[in-house]
Amino acid sequence: ARAAKKAGMRALVGEVLYDFPSPNYGPPEKGLIYTQELIQRWQGDPLISVMVEPHALFTCSPRLLKDAKDIAERYNTPLIIHLSETKNEVEEVIKRYGKTPVCHLNDIGLLDDRLIAIHCVNLTPYDMGLLGERDVKVVHCPQSNMKLASGIAPIPHLLEKGVTLSLGTDGPASNNDLDMFQEMDTAAKLHKFHAQDPMVMNAKQVVRMATIEGAKTLGLEIHMGSIEEGKKADIIIVDLNSPHLIPLYDLYSHLVYAADGSDVITSIINGKIIMKDRNILTFDIKEAIERVNQFSQMIN
Amino acid sequence: ARAAKKAGMRALVGEVLYDFPSPNYGPPEKGLIYTQELIQRWQGDPLISVMVEPHALFTCSPRLLKDAKDIAERYNTPLIIHLSETKNEVEEVIKRYGKTPVCHLNDIGLLDDRLIAIHCVNLTPYDMGLLGERDVKVVHCPQSNMKLASGIAPIPHLLEKGVTLSLGTDGPASNNDLDMFQEMDTAAKLHKFHAQDPMVMNAKQVVRMATIEGAKTLGLEIHMGSIEEGKKADIIIVDLNSPHLIPLYDLYSHLVYAADGSDVITSIINGKIIMKDRNILTFDIKEAIERVNQFSQMIN
Repeated sequence: ARAAKKAGMRALVGEVLYDFPSPNYGPPEKGLIYTQELIQRWQGDPLISVMVEPHALFTCSPRLLKDAKDIAERYNTPLIIHLSETKNEVEEVIKRYGKTPVCHLNDIGLLDDRLIAIHCVNLTPYDMGLLGERDVKVVHCPQSNMKLASGIAPIPHLLEKGVTLSLGTDGPASNNDLDMFQEMDTAAKLHKFHAQDPMVMNAKQVVRMATIEGAKTLGLEIHMGSIEEGKKADIIIVDLNSPHLIPLYDLYSHLVYAADGSDVITSIINGKIIMKDRNILTFDIKEAIERVNQFSQMIN
Repeated sequence: ARAAKKAGMRALVGEVLYDFPSPNYGPPEKGLIYTQELIQRWQGDPLISVMVEPHALFTCSPRLLKDAKDIAERYNTPLIIHLSETKNEVEEVIKRYGKTPVCHLNDIGLLDDRLIAIHCVNLTPYDMGLLGERDVKVVHCPQSNMKLASGIAPIPHLLEKGVTLSLGTDGPASNNDLDMFQEMDTAAKLHKFHAQDPMVMNAKQVVRMATIEGAKTLGLEIHMGSIEEGKKADIIIVDLNSPHLIPLYDLYSHLVYAADGSDVITSIINGKIIMKDRNILTFDIKEAIERVNQFSQMIN
């Protein structure tokens, strides 16, 4: 949170909660306290908000999940969890609780419009219906799912069920580049391939998933996610004059299939210019690179 | 060919041959003459070579294919064709000739180590065996296959059969960005996803497909495809100091999953620097952009 704040980035952060000790906060019961302190410390910040983040169903007991939900409700924050990411997870949960991860969350009262469910790769049709009815927000991370061979999330079916669907890169361990443009490209192509239909997931729909649907997922669509009067100025400027972006016929198709992260030349967050002509104005990038390299050598 | 030569690029080009008239050379019979003239004109050029390029089995009669093969043999050039790209193509060929596209090519004598087969998405196990036995070179274009919903080429199985496999982007109509780095990324992830095994298609194997296996495909592995004494200097320099490429743990993984085309700062082709610090030295990029935009407006 402090690093994002210093960089001028908008961030929704959370401390991951498990049934076992964490190097960050010690024994499990301290995790809930730590999360509440974090929420209180950042309350009202224009850039940083804190959410409650139980890790997943195979690492969190029903007790921990319910406690997490209570905190999210008390402070009115989103609740975020990895859900039905792998076949192993689903099998493990069915073995332990006799139902799918989605049904288990429903039965213990976590399945509502506050919940942000990441991945949702392995779902039954009944699960999909529940996610739609309860207005759960689903984050699709196609490159991570491919790299880890987790499977493919049934995105076209979830769209039919009216689920709010946004796009995520997951972390650097499962998707090195964290480039939302390449994530859009993959999302569009993966579902065309899987549905055997080149008309599935058109470019405009994919751009929506990376912008306004992302804002809806975080409950922030009143303030951001589209360029409109009265919304916060969270804007990127893409240089369309590079050789690989010429000629231009369709802007949405261009953003999804042709552009990538390196084409962003300027970033404005909350009305403030953070990167201008590819130069980051809020911190010393050379110093940051040096420090990361130092950390990396310590790990090696 | 002239444009590539002027730009200092190495290129293997061909005039596409069909059973019907082409706007470039007129009636079909002129295509074979045109191809021979093209081969003769560029013979011995250090950068440009010409290959014989019948389009596909549903657009080329057995007569045209055999004539094309004769020319390729006479001038010792590769023969390149789109093969088993879509289900429709396979069904059409089976209907017309009673056998799969690969078996049809085998029966009319085209299936040998001179043949470069692009796509090879829809293959029977027998087809795969034939491609391996006859040392056919297969070019895998995963992003194009995904975008057009053609399917997925059985690359891990073809590797088992010993087929020489390289990586292609296909053209801008079916894969806008023509970025070999992103193609490597997709190739690695797509087969992990499809095989449900994150160990399939490791990064080093994918880098080989984009370098030395590509050279083998073109029959040029003695002269290029790896940095070795006695080979032509066809080298790119990737800037590893950009923020998104730090820290670096594994170079192959970095090239496949983290880098993209915009990270290439210098290109050396045939020992000559063509791009230095991202500036192209062989032609005026601004003038080229203006001309492309003019053409684009004529199309619109």
